[in-house]
Amino acid sequence: MATQRILDYIADRRPQTPCLVIDLEAVRASFEALSSALPDSAVYYAVKANPDPAVLSLLASLGSSFDTASVAEIEMALAAGATPNRISFGNTIKKERDVARAYELGIRLFAVDCEDEAQKVARAAPGSAVFCRILTDGEGAEWPLSRKFGCVPAMASEVLARAASLGLEAAGVSFHVGSQQTDLGSWDRAIADAKGVFDRASALGLDLRLLNMGGGFPARYLMDVPSAQAYGEAISEALRRHFGNRVPETIVEPGRGMVGNAGAILAEVVLVSRKSPDDPFRWVYLDIGKFGGLAETMDEAIRYPISTVRDGDPCEPCILAGPTCDSADVLYEKQPYPLPLTLKTGDQVVIGGTGAYTTTYSAVAFNGFEPLRSHAI
Amino acid sequence: MATQRILDYIADRRPQTPCLVIDLEAVRASFEALSSALPDSAVYYAVKANPDPAVLSLLASLGSSFDTASVAEIEMALAAGATPNRISFGNTIKKERDVARAYELGIRLFAVDCEDEAQKVARAAPGSAVFCRILTDGEGAEWPLSRKFGCVPAMASEVLARAASLGLEAAGVSFHVGSQQTDLGSWDRAIADAKGVFDRASALGLDLRLLNMGGGFPARYLMDVPSAQAYGEAISEALRRHFGNRVPETIVEPGRGMVGNAGAILAEVVLVSRKSPDDPFRWVYLDIGKFGGLAETMDEAIRYPISTVRDGDPCEPCILAGPTCDSADVLYEKQPYPLPLTLKTGDQVVIGGTGAYTTTYSAVAFNGFEPLRSHAI
Repeated sequence: MATQRILDYIADRRPQTPCLVIDLEAVRASFEALSSALPDSAVYYAVKANPDPAVLSLLASLGSSFDTASVAEIEMALAAGATPNRISFGNTIKKERDVARAYELGIRLFAVDCEDEAQKVARAAPGSAVFCRILTDGEGAEWPLSRKFGCVPAMASEVLARAASLGLEAAGVSFHVGSQQTDLGSWDRAIADAKGVFDRASALGLDLRLLNMGGGFPARYLMDVPSAQAYGEAISEALRRHFGNRVPETIVEPGRGMVGNAGAILAEVVLVSRKSPDDPFRWVYLDIGKFGGLAETMDEAIRYPISTVRDGDPCEPCILAGPTCDSADVLYEKQPYPLPLTLKTGDQVVIGGTGAYTTTYSAVAFNGFEPLRSHAI
Repeated sequence: MATQRILDYIADRRPQTPCLVIDLEAVRASFEALSSALPDSAVYYAVKANPDPAVLSLLASLGSSFDTASVAEIEMALAAGATPNRISFGNTIKKERDVARAYELGIRLFAVDCEDEAQKVARAAPGSAVFCRILTDGEGAEWPLSRKFGCVPAMASEVLARAASLGLEAAGVSFHVGSQQTDLGSWDRAIADAKGVFDRASALGLDLRLLNMGGGFPARYLMDVPSAQAYGEAISEALRRHFGNRVPETIVEPGRGMVGNAGAILAEVVLVSRKSPDDPFRWVYLDIGKFGGLAETMDEAIRYPISTVRDGDPCEPCILAGPTCDSADVLYEKQPYPLPLTLKTGDQVVIGGTGAYTTTYSAVAFNGFEPLRSHAI
């Protein structure tokens, strides 16, 4: 749920709803937990999860590196105090002019997953290091990865060999086990696949040095998730199992796991109604919905913890929806959400675990509603 | 597809991609077609479909009224030259302070679908007119309506009677047959339901005067849709069938049907790749995706027509995706999209029928990508 600092801020400042409040002390604690759970890995914070300048500055000052998806994110990381050697351009889908701009800004580490992308990097960022992303199955992840990023492991060594022939440094391999991944075994399978690429690359005369293990570290929503420590141990064991005493340099890219639980959204109940006198379910409408920052409720994938001013009163499941005139702007309907029967128009609610993938998913002005405000405290 | 004026603009100006280009002459033609197909109905343009100031000003000058979803949209309609008596606050989910603000701005027509909402309007906009939205089944619509808006018809007369007892004018009934509705018969069923509410209201001593028939008028995407004239005839017949010679004042609220085909998005191919040497499908990545304005590809609901600089070359189905690091940012995968085999990185494509529900759905800065630019010509 929300941290005490967030609850105090809401009580004292009474900010206008809807808004996200981010607790920087909680971000610091996350960074420290992840760093100490994975002491041999460099932490590259996934900027896309929450690019709030205060979050980026804090993480830069703590020694974090940054995984970026665009030139704009590279510029934000630099503005926050990161040096270019601590920034990776991790999007496998880049315009060549954006690769060139990143190179001008000093970036020398790029993700690829096919020969064409390696050719772009070779032309626009000559001599840079590249890692090739491989496909994983993503089983056990709550926010499923599609096949959108990566190539099959058997193709990755060819892509890296081609990159080397174009004058790039064939640095290594990356994977992503799927966001909000709670199956610790999925890292073992992905690390085994990555080791296969290291071996095939070695047979092609390449000496890979880097394994980018991506993100997937979960936030705690309604259900408990394994601790950072448990992730660290599972990953360390898998690395030793597959790489023996030749474990490469490793990177992790937490986004949701870094900031998800550091934020909470304050929202207001706009209306409570029933569709007929004998409707078994109430409809509860909030002043935030799918287009205002809660895009990850798509297909009801992420189920946020919600606290209300009426907690303790008897609860019944309700259908929870956003404030726009879009019929798709419904948060939980297939699986109605239990909320107090006494909840009424004007009541405030706190939606926990919303520090990641909320502000930036927010629509620019859908139905005239302004984007989600954010307060870093 | 795109109009000739849009294609000429793209050829002459070569605007930076991605961007939406809106042809105001096509908007004018839509308004005229809808107005002449429904000569006895007032046209309330659904601002949420595309609130570009140039579109609003044009429609205001042509005599259109406006259906709005928020105070911001009311202000935009007023700024475009609409008088308050030509603006309806059509969202059934309103904060009371927003109702009050609308009332201050001169708005006197509000949507409700339950007693609580009627009470808000009675307190914050005393004496105003309200219409009660009823649920329809939405069958035949490509963008399905949920049960989010409206109450069952049997409840609507009670809500209107309550509104009257609170000093409001119980003006009438509204429905929405579902966006992109291609089944002309759905208006008949909804009008029959509305007539039932008129009758029950009459038995309660209320003399309803207004029937708001909402939107649902389609844009032409890949498949042909009935003409505005066919919609007009079906609706006029249904009105006569159910209301006889006592047809009430009617309103329609076209959004998609007004501007959908007046706009086209210019985009660029960022990458074409395969996931393995024997992958049967190419992946084609554009510089616009689900979070940059093409939100309506959610569940592959809306299938846009796409033209490329290689049209005429042999085609094969491909998986089409956006440029962000989000694995959900895939446009067409369940049903791959046929595109020329010769299509390559850097090629431009034109995505037709994108005048509605694109710019405002665009995320504010997801992955650092800026919101969709719009050029009204």
